[in-house]
Amino acid sequence: MNKRKRTFELKTKPKILSGYTVVGPKEGDGALGEYFDKVLTDDLFGEKTYELAESKMQQEAVKGALKRSGISKEEIDLTVSGDLLNQIYASCFAARELETAFLGLYGACSTFGESLIVASLLINTGMIEKCCCSTSSHFSSAERQYRYPLELGNQRPPTSQWTVTGAGASILSADGDGVSIDKVTIGRVIDFGIDDVNNMGAAMAPAAADTISAFFGESGEKPEDFDMIVTGDLGRYGGELLLKLLYEKNINISKVYHDCGAMIYKPEQQTYQGGSGAGCCNVVFNAFIANKMLKKELKKVLLVPTGALLSKDSPLQGQTIPGIAHAISFRAPE
Amino acid sequence: MNKRKRTFELKTKPKILSGYTVVGPKEGDGALGEYFDKVLTDDLFGEKTYELAESKMQQEAVKGALKRSGISKEEIDLTVSGDLLNQIYASCFAARELETAFLGLYGACSTFGESLIVASLLINTGMIEKCCCSTSSHFSSAERQYRYPLELGNQRPPTSQWTVTGAGASILSADGDGVSIDKVTIGRVIDFGIDDVNNMGAAMAPAAADTISAFFGESGEKPEDFDMIVTGDLGRYGGELLLKLLYEKNINISKVYHDCGAMIYKPEQQTYQGGSGAGCCNVVFNAFIANKMLKKELKKVLLVPTGALLSKDSPLQGQTIPGIAHAISFRAPE
Repeated sequence: MNKRKRTFELKTKPKILSGYTVVGPKEGDGALGEYFDKVLTDDLFGEKTYELAESKMQQEAVKGALKRSGISKEEIDLTVSGDLLNQIYASCFAARELETAFLGLYGACSTFGESLIVASLLINTGMIEKCCCSTSSHFSSAERQYRYPLELGNQRPPTSQWTVTGAGASILSADGDGVSIDKVTIGRVIDFGIDDVNNMGAAMAPAAADTISAFFGESGEKPEDFDMIVTGDLGRYGGELLLKLLYEKNINISKVYHDCGAMIYKPEQQTYQGGSGAGCCNVVFNAFIANKMLKKELKKVLLVPTGALLSKDSPLQGQTIPGIAHAISFRAPE
Repeated sequence: MNKRKRTFELKTKPKILSGYTVVGPKEGDGALGEYFDKVLTDDLFGEKTYELAESKMQQEAVKGALKRSGISKEEIDLTVSGDLLNQIYASCFAARELETAFLGLYGACSTFGESLIVASLLINTGMIEKCCCSTSSHFSSAERQYRYPLELGNQRPPTSQWTVTGAGASILSADGDGVSIDKVTIGRVIDFGIDDVNNMGAAMAPAAADTISAFFGESGEKPEDFDMIVTGDLGRYGGELLLKLLYEKNINISKVYHDCGAMIYKPEQQTYQGGSGAGCCNVVFNAFIANKMLKKELKKVLLVPTGALLSKDSPLQGQTIPGIAHAISFRAPE
């Protein structure tokens, strides 16, 4: 084995049996509104707090994905989940209802990618058969945790992104039909010295470039083999920066490049750079991309979920913003 | 495969090449003080904040473990880390320095167990050779994040535990000499309705009982096969509760039972129930237990790291405290 090779081919090709998505009203009004399984009319979802609403959304996504896959929760070997809340509150409380073995993850907005990687590598061992991957984010719980009280109505700068209110779950299995996971690249923590907490795209773009470059360098794949290479969630400006950084490494993905954050809202929704959050690329993938793959409109897709690894405290303590990105290549059913 | 079996035997028996521990002054004065590799005289470790000090302690532990194993950081395929801070601040910033592939975990005080499980299962796939597992906690960063400002000097109730200032790292490898990982059980989220944030032992004991019972039920092992069964960190009262809960399931581990939290401090240090924190069972295992195994004073050990999956917000929102526990069985070198 090469030293520090970060790309792994999954010989068993784990399958995504089903996915299910639950989003808030703004996401329902967005560019992909028609594709989501459940659109809330009230982002409190009948709960008293946004954090409990987010956890309920994640539970609802898991229940929906299980129902769609036709398997019971008793057949799930493992749940791998995470979210943006302190101590991954939403995921831990959702896992309490599910009663399966549980591994909690934190990778900021890259967490959905991290969960797919952990689940698919473990399925590839042959020790685990069926795994549930779920993540969530909520505009109101994230905004008040990371930034300002919602009641303050702060102005947002043009480089900012809007945290997606959304939860999604994917049921992965060693056998069965569905979109398959082909290869994965685990990301590294990369810090290019960005210290503007309202410019996450710039903080994460170097990590995305590093991971995409490692994926193509180690896997033997070429950008032109893919129908879509999609980051989550660099936003519009971060996406442009990524294309430039890759161009400097002689990698050109511009023909097939998209970003989940840039895709999810309509321009008139004034989210500036687009969406972000641990739920963003999850709901865009499960509701839109995976379904296009099932219809064979897309045959080969590289998903690159990105995360900014700051806490509320780290910028106040003078720290720059480290980023991470993971890559997962999917194939449509034959 | 049995449905929802949570115990896995690692056929490749991943080895712990080395471990290294860094602790604060209070831990240095504690019952295991002589075993730690580095004892700080100042728990700020030359940094301006406790959070940065904790991150530096984790970096120092990783450097120490790498040096002791004789391998370079370039040979590490993957780092799997976590801590108690919001957005696992200490681990993300430590990983930034290490430059390996990185998976961030959150499992509260069970995180060291979670990292050993993820690392050893991935090594067992044959895809990853060498993995670094690190976790940390810091009394001052945890206290001000979860409870009250340090300056307030709040009284602590008799059921409370003291967050350990400590960081540890283990280097796991597919080959080489050292204590080996034999079997692992992944925990479930269990909530028995405890809502006292100063009684974590009671909140976590049911999860520990559930995992230990699953381990013995699924692995074919018996408690009498083990020289030590050690939880981290139920504390004294939580440990007694665990023995009672297991006794109700006809499992008697009392002859070989210990708790990392109860072991780490001296009674006169007035920590009441003992230590806790994502660094606690890590430093007790790496400094004390693993060395006893290398000397063959202990041949077979079951480590059961436990975690209370609350956030600062969840009790304020009327939620009870879910717990989780993972189990890892180790064998001394032949």
